[in-house]
Amino acid sequence: MLSSKHLMTMGDVSAEEIALILDTAESFSEVNQRRIKKLPTLRGRTVVNLFFEPSTRTRTSFEIAAKRLSADGVNFSASASATVKGETLRDTAKTLAAMSCDLVIVRHKYAGAPQMLAEAMDCSIVNGGDGVHEHPTQALLDLYTMRQALGKLEGLRVGIVGDVCHSRVAGSLVPALRKVGATPIIIGPPTLMPARPDVLGAEVAYDLDEVLPTLDVAYLLRVQFERAAQMPFPSNREYATLYGMNVARMVKLPSHAIVMHPGPMNRGVEISADVADSPRSVILGQVESGVAVRMAVMYLLLGGADSGAAA
Amino acid sequence: MLSSKHLMTMGDVSAEEIALILDTAESFSEVNQRRIKKLPTLRGRTVVNLFFEPSTRTRTSFEIAAKRLSADGVNFSASASATVKGETLRDTAKTLAAMSCDLVIVRHKYAGAPQMLAEAMDCSIVNGGDGVHEHPTQALLDLYTMRQALGKLEGLRVGIVGDVCHSRVAGSLVPALRKVGATPIIIGPPTLMPARPDVLGAEVAYDLDEVLPTLDVAYLLRVQFERAAQMPFPSNREYATLYGMNVARMVKLPSHAIVMHPGPMNRGVEISADVADSPRSVILGQVESGVAVRMAVMYLLLGGADSGAAA
Amino acid sequence: MLSSKHLMTMGDVSAEEIALILDTAESFSEVNQRRIKKLPTLRGRTVVNLFFEPSTRTRTSFEIAAKRLSADGVNFSASASATVKGETLRDTAKTLAAMSCDLVIVRHKYAGAPQMLAEAMDCSIVNGGDGVHEHPTQALLDLYTMRQALGKLEGLRVGIVGDVCHSRVAGSLVPALRKVGATPIIIGPPTLMPARPDVLGAEVAYDLDEVLPTLDVAYLLRVQFERAAQMPFPSNREYATLYGMNVARMVKLPSHAIVMHPGPMNRGVEISADVADSPRSVILGQVESGVAVRMAVMYLLLGGADSGAAA
Repeated sequence: MLSSKHLMTMGDVSAEEIALILDTAESFSEVNQRRIKKLPTLRGRTVVNLFFEPSTRTRTSFEIAAKRLSADGVNFSASASATVKGETLRDTAKTLAAMSCDLVIVRHKYAGAPQMLAEAMDCSIVNGGDGVHEHPTQALLDLYTMRQALGKLEGLRVGIVGDVCHSRVAGSLVPALRKVGATPIIIGPPTLMPARPDVLGAEVAYDLDEVLPTLDVAYLLRVQFERAAQMPFPSNREYATLYGMNVARMVKLPSHAIVMHPGPMNRGVEISADVADSPRSVILGQVESGVAVRMAVMYLLLGGADSGAAA
Repeated sequence: MLSSKHLMTMGDVSAEEIALILDTAESFSEVNQRRIKKLPTLRGRTVVNLFFEPSTRTRTSFEIAAKRLSADGVNFSASASATVKGETLRDTAKTLAAMSCDLVIVRHKYAGAPQMLAEAMDCSIVNGGDGVHEHPTQALLDLYTMRQALGKLEGLRVGIVGDVCHSRVAGSLVPALRKVGATPIIIGPPTLMPARPDVLGAEVAYDLDEVLPTLDVAYLLRVQFERAAQMPFPSNREYATLYGMNVARMVKLPSHAIVMHPGPMNRGVEISADVADSPRSVILGQVESGVAVRMAVMYLLLGGADSGAAA
Repeated sequence: MLSSKHLMTMGDVSAEEIALILDTAESFSEVNQRRIKKLPTLRGRTVVNLFFEPSTRTRTSFEIAAKRLSADGVNFSASASATVKGETLRDTAKTLAAMSCDLVIVRHKYAGAPQMLAEAMDCSIVNGGDGVHEHPTQALLDLYTMRQALGKLEGLRVGIVGDVCHSRVAGSLVPALRKVGATPIIIGPPTLMPARPDVLGAEVAYDLDEVLPTLDVAYLLRVQFERAAQMPFPSNREYATLYGMNVARMVKLPSHAIVMHPGPMNRGVEISADVADSPRSVILGQVESGVAVRMAVMYLLLGGADSGAAA
């Protein structure tokens, strides 16, 4: 089991726990290949998807994961919610807690929302993305996908390209990589770099083409058009020219290196269509890993092993 | 079982039936404390949440209740519905009936919508709140919470404070209290009192501070900002001053008295934060009771006891 | 089983397959009359409702069908989806495929969207309505209803009245009727007729009153106010006068003939209220058949028979 009953930030998860989660996910991944994708593990447990930001792939991934473990899932979306009647997040949390929920997955535009929930509720909280802060299950599924594709994590050089400054994906992936002995290199225009990259603990580079031959993984961040009121670069074309992954760049990678992206992709901006669909791309593998990793996280947080006997 | 197959209004429910519902809820409440919160009672029964008004706490409470009884639940929300294509409520009802639904929970802005559904459908209807008319499961969970906190219902004096005139919560709670032998006292500004309080059968008071020492329960109604085109009082501050529950007022209550609120709360308006979070407040207990009471209502309406053998 | 793993268009379904689907639906229809409406057939299979257009009756019908077969259902609606972040339909499809979905029901405003999904995914696709093209499960439930009401399909004369040109219901029903040996007659104002009715293979008529005495079925299409930027007829009143079904017209039908409508109805436009509610109307029968037919389609596409043993 895990030392915490929550998954809030990768900083809280030890290297041993990461290995446990990935190993557990491997067995669930096998279940997901079966015709009958169903285990009784979390039968009678109540799992709430509390999403205050639009999301489909993450919410659906968690929802499918919960259903395959036989949990009772409830979607509690912001637009339909009591928040339009002025209820505070803390009161919403306490209300859900009073309904005897076992696990809440929360996505919120404010960093720290999952922490506030954890203080208000007795149940387990999984951070499903909080503002520009963290998105830990994304980092875990990324590690799973890298380990599966490259056979190991230790010693890997992973280039994280793009809007690192506003990316909760990078916010979780950089510390996760360091924990497992890999080297994160953040690459992008200076305007999109964090103010104190040294605190983050990542190497920093500004010239993508120079770094490419040294990488095992090229991880392209999404340009988040829906977040940016004003883009800190002149145009999509300029972004694609300087930091977009295309075939000309892909061939500069070592022959074993893989290309990753958290999705959804802006084809033609941060990644060209031919790279996205190339054999180097493990982007769909990431989605596939996502369901298995989330099943593992739910199972380990809720101590699923015991419930089998009780069920 | 209940004499009616519907739960439309508290006027239709006898004192004996109220006792049966609360006793049944007690056993479900115990289930909700378990690790495995699941009974096979309503397996294979189809329960539809037909919500024409935004709601999360009520809809989620019914949804969780249905899932814990193993019913197949379907959410049918107005925004996505055929009503945007001009279908009448009656045709929507008949359509759902043709899909062999067993129970429909309906929330609608018009009083009488549940009655119209009951005329159009063979299945059981639960009124989940109709306009300013009634919200019977709220009244039942309130009674459950009072009985649990104070050990009895008969003889209790319950002050219902605020916008009684537009409150479907009050619309169900006042007759429910009278049936069980408790005394409802409605308290608020004259502009928010019903035109004929004598018909309602409640005592009426305008000075909250004077009444407080005589109450067993102070029940604060929500100021429904989303309903009122124009507030019938000058400002939130004035409302809070005259009718808001705060610590200065709470201490005027007898020492055993409890504070209730149907939620979601407007902290600082009808209730201060320190009262909401005080040990006197049973507001989260109301939410918790809600799931158990709704399980009991579904079970009793659908004659769940028989289905166990057939399952 | 069926020769294709998809249900895209009625053109792909043979007469023998139609008969198989209707016979299978008959056994599921019996299940839907039971108290416990639940079979373990598709336990552990993941069924996604991918709806890019608002729909309630069709989505709910598929959702209930999936639940009664014990499938894990996920609703993936457009408004909440990654499409707002600019993801292509093909990437959305590949993402769902990577989550190991078994069947996707898609509704989209563009004809051909289901075909594109089928090219991007390994799983089964059911066309839940694509633009003005086809809506095959509607045609199948219509055939089921006709067979049930009239005892046969061969030789029936079915008048399809209204906006044939923009109707995906007609787009599937006309070829379906021809396959089973029935005769479709399309009837409406010239402005709402297809440009090449001969290609469609239907008889064409413009005067409804003249045709009525020759029909076994009067099938009234919905006037799709939400689709038409500009109505190709002067007013609802004129439409009702020329092509609306009312009691005066109904009595011109042979005494055994039935009235059908895919819903939701515009009462007073294409159909009068007294016809809609008359014993001649099998409109609610169509809704009821819909659940059974969709259960049959899911069962046959996913080869449900085998999964029983594995479950």
